Amino acid sequence: MVNFSDRMDGIKASDIRALLKLTAQPDIISFAGGLPAPELFPVEDIQTAFDAVMKENGRTALQYGQTEGYAPLRKHIVDRMAKKNNIHSDPDHVILTAGSQQGLDFIGKLFLNPGDVVVLESPSYLGAINAFKQYQPNFVEVPTDENGMIMEELDRVLATTENVKLIYIIPDFQNPSGRTWPLERRRQFMEIIEKYGVPAIEDNPYGDLRFKGEYLPALKSMDKQGLIIYFGTFSKILSPGFRIGWICANEQIIEKVNLIAQAAVLQTATVNAMVISKYLDLFDVDEHVAKILPVYKHRCGLMIDTMRECFPEEAKFTDPDGGLFTWVELPDYVNTRDLAAVALEHKVAFVPGSGFYPKGNVNNGMRLNYSCSTDDRIVNGIHLLSDVIKGALK
Amino acid sequence: MVNFSDRMDGIKASDIRALLKLTAQPDIISFAGGLPAPELFPVEDIQTAFDAVMKENGRTALQYGQTEGYAPLRKHIVDRMAKKNNIHSDPDHVILTAGSQQGLDFIGKLFLNPGDVVVLESPSYLGAINAFKQYQPNFVEVPTDENGMIMEELDRVLATTENVKLIYIIPDFQNPSGRTWPLERRRQFMEIIEKYGVPAIEDNPYGDLRFKGEYLPALKSMDKQGLIIYFGTFSKILSPGFRIGWICANEQIIEKVNLIAQAAVLQTATVNAMVISKYLDLFDVDEHVAKILPVYKHRCGLMIDTMRECFPEEAKFTDPDGGLFTWVELPDYVNTRDLAAVALEHKVAFVPGSGFYPKGNVNNGMRLNYSCSTDDRIVNGIHLLSDVIKGALK
Repeated sequence: MVNFSDRMDGIKASDIRALLKLTAQPDIISFAGGLPAPELFPVEDIQTAFDAVMKENGRTALQYGQTEGYAPLRKHIVDRMAKKNNIHSDPDHVILTAGSQQGLDFIGKLFLNPGDVVVLESPSYLGAINAFKQYQPNFVEVPTDENGMIMEELDRVLATTENVKLIYIIPDFQNPSGRTWPLERRRQFMEIIEKYGVPAIEDNPYGDLRFKGEYLPALKSMDKQGLIIYFGTFSKILSPGFRIGWICANEQIIEKVNLIAQAAVLQTATVNAMVISKYLDLFDVDEHVAKILPVYKHRCGLMIDTMRECFPEEAKFTDPDGGLFTWVELPDYVNTRDLAAVALEHKVAFVPGSGFYPKGNVNNGMRLNYSCSTDDRIVNGIHLLSDVIKGALK
Repeated sequence: MVNFSDRMDGIKASDIRALLKLTAQPDIISFAGGLPAPELFPVEDIQTAFDAVMKENGRTALQYGQTEGYAPLRKHIVDRMAKKNNIHSDPDHVILTAGSQQGLDFIGKLFLNPGDVVVLESPSYLGAINAFKQYQPNFVEVPTDENGMIMEELDRVLATTENVKLIYIIPDFQNPSGRTWPLERRRQFMEIIEKYGVPAIEDNPYGDLRFKGEYLPALKSMDKQGLIIYFGTFSKILSPGFRIGWICANEQIIEKVNLIAQAAVLQTATVNAMVISKYLDLFDVDEHVAKILPVYKHRCGLMIDTMRECFPEEAKFTDPDGGLFTWVELPDYVNTRDLAAVALEHKVAFVPGSGFYPKGNVNNGMRLNYSCSTDDRIVNGIHLLSDVIKGALK
């Protein structure tokens, strides 16, 4: 009887969210989520920050605030982007969002008419695909290799595709592949998008989580024409439960995002922004990140070593320099969606790869998360998974 | 150079948000916002709740959570809706939103194709109009009198209008008019929407803020066919800075809203939901509301009395039984958008009425907020405003 909008035809339940529900049982070893390690959350420091905000400024924290978000936090963000990413911006070019996911919704809404084209890496982040699908675009995927997006392919796509409104990329420790673009590809990318004048979202939730190799500059730091819409977040370095991310972009775009944010949500939570700002006043977040890195490095290394030890040679996997994920590719004939069901029976969970392709037509990938599992569970879980994979091979 | 989506043509800056920025200066007496009185915020109790959450469950609070929101809070909400509104629902039929504004965005996205019709009261809430405009509907306004929407007019509109996808109403202490629908109109409304099978958003942010007259049942409590999409929020009874509201609707709708929420934002902030839930465990929110009511009753009465005393007879205004707003109508030839600029020069602010009409074509209204001004400022501000109004009369 109730008649929904046409866009709902394209909006389906996310594999990840559905799996996360199933995998909440403690007897299941889950590599399915993208969760930071909760034992590393700075609970006491956050509490100190909250108490300080309430004592100094409680009534402001509990009240409505500005759509663009608490100004001192935007100043912190600008200072940190300058220091860590060589991005020189201004608090007026930053708007807070309820995590980067909300940024994806806002930018999709800002740019996309039905039928417009979004260009993205293949595979790409499932949550971005789902956010953009709300606006009924067509997706064009650019092939990738071990160094991320292949720039000759991007050039060819932009030369031959009409109506490209937006490019979406994660150059650092990509979700789901864990791959990072080398410097030369970053330079090529900027040249190509400048040639065609196409704006691009640089989604950088994991950039601070580099535990191997050398720092590489953000695309935004090379952005001469204001084409890069940069996304940052506190979810992976501090707490996802606070839902505070940000968009940094040129004035014309930020002004429009502000209008969208007003209409969609009025503002992010005042209290959350003030507590994170106070945390950054009182504590050194980089000291906190420095505690996270060796743990993730160890867990990633243990997962990769265990896969090397027990996975069949038909299973290819990435060896990330940071972030939260590794990506496994099995022979084409293996459907990892079916495999995930078998794996769950064996008490181990992962995210099947098809959701990371907009058409859902590539079925042999699996995303594994290492950041929130103990050593025991990593070793046991990978052995369980190895048996499940072997059972599926011809 | 950058090419935005067609929907951006309809998305303009909100009068309220722009004014709120101007009126932040302390020398301006502002009746423009819709702010709860900050001096009544239960800062210490919120702090107690936060500390308890961090001690008992800090790592869960800082982590990702479910899209539908923290289950114990949804249980609290269902219990309270049963007790206060005679609405008998289930936590599975409730989803948390970042304030009711986000609910408006989600429901607009769920129902509206470009050109679909939204039916609303005339005038109606500016923020709802702006939220829906993102989805390019046509608006059909139903005339109102001192008792809210005129039901014969609604019947006529639904009988003669194609493609009505959604009705949006605030039956209790409406924003901007302050008017409340009597019982008979509520019954008529339900009969009419059941006859046509059209879903309706019952937005009820102010229902708990009744300081005069008798309780009237929520439409949702009379909803036999699951047509009412009920919106509640903690913004007006506890804290808007936490951005926690909810949608209560039938399963088919909640399921779809959950998909939209996943794609748009993943979830509301875990920590915010847990802190409000803990507050409701530890404290009696109705005792807190009981402290708010006499203050708002007094401020409303003082504003109305002062208007009666000094406003010219050409200015007609409502005398609300609750909520945050009174609505003034001036002669047709007065444009309150121009008047607002003059008023600002005289250090008093209000929201001009045109934004509360989807076409912006009615220019003689003004919305006044009384909840967050001291006695002095109410009396002085109304006298200042009276002089400004008199200066605009022929």
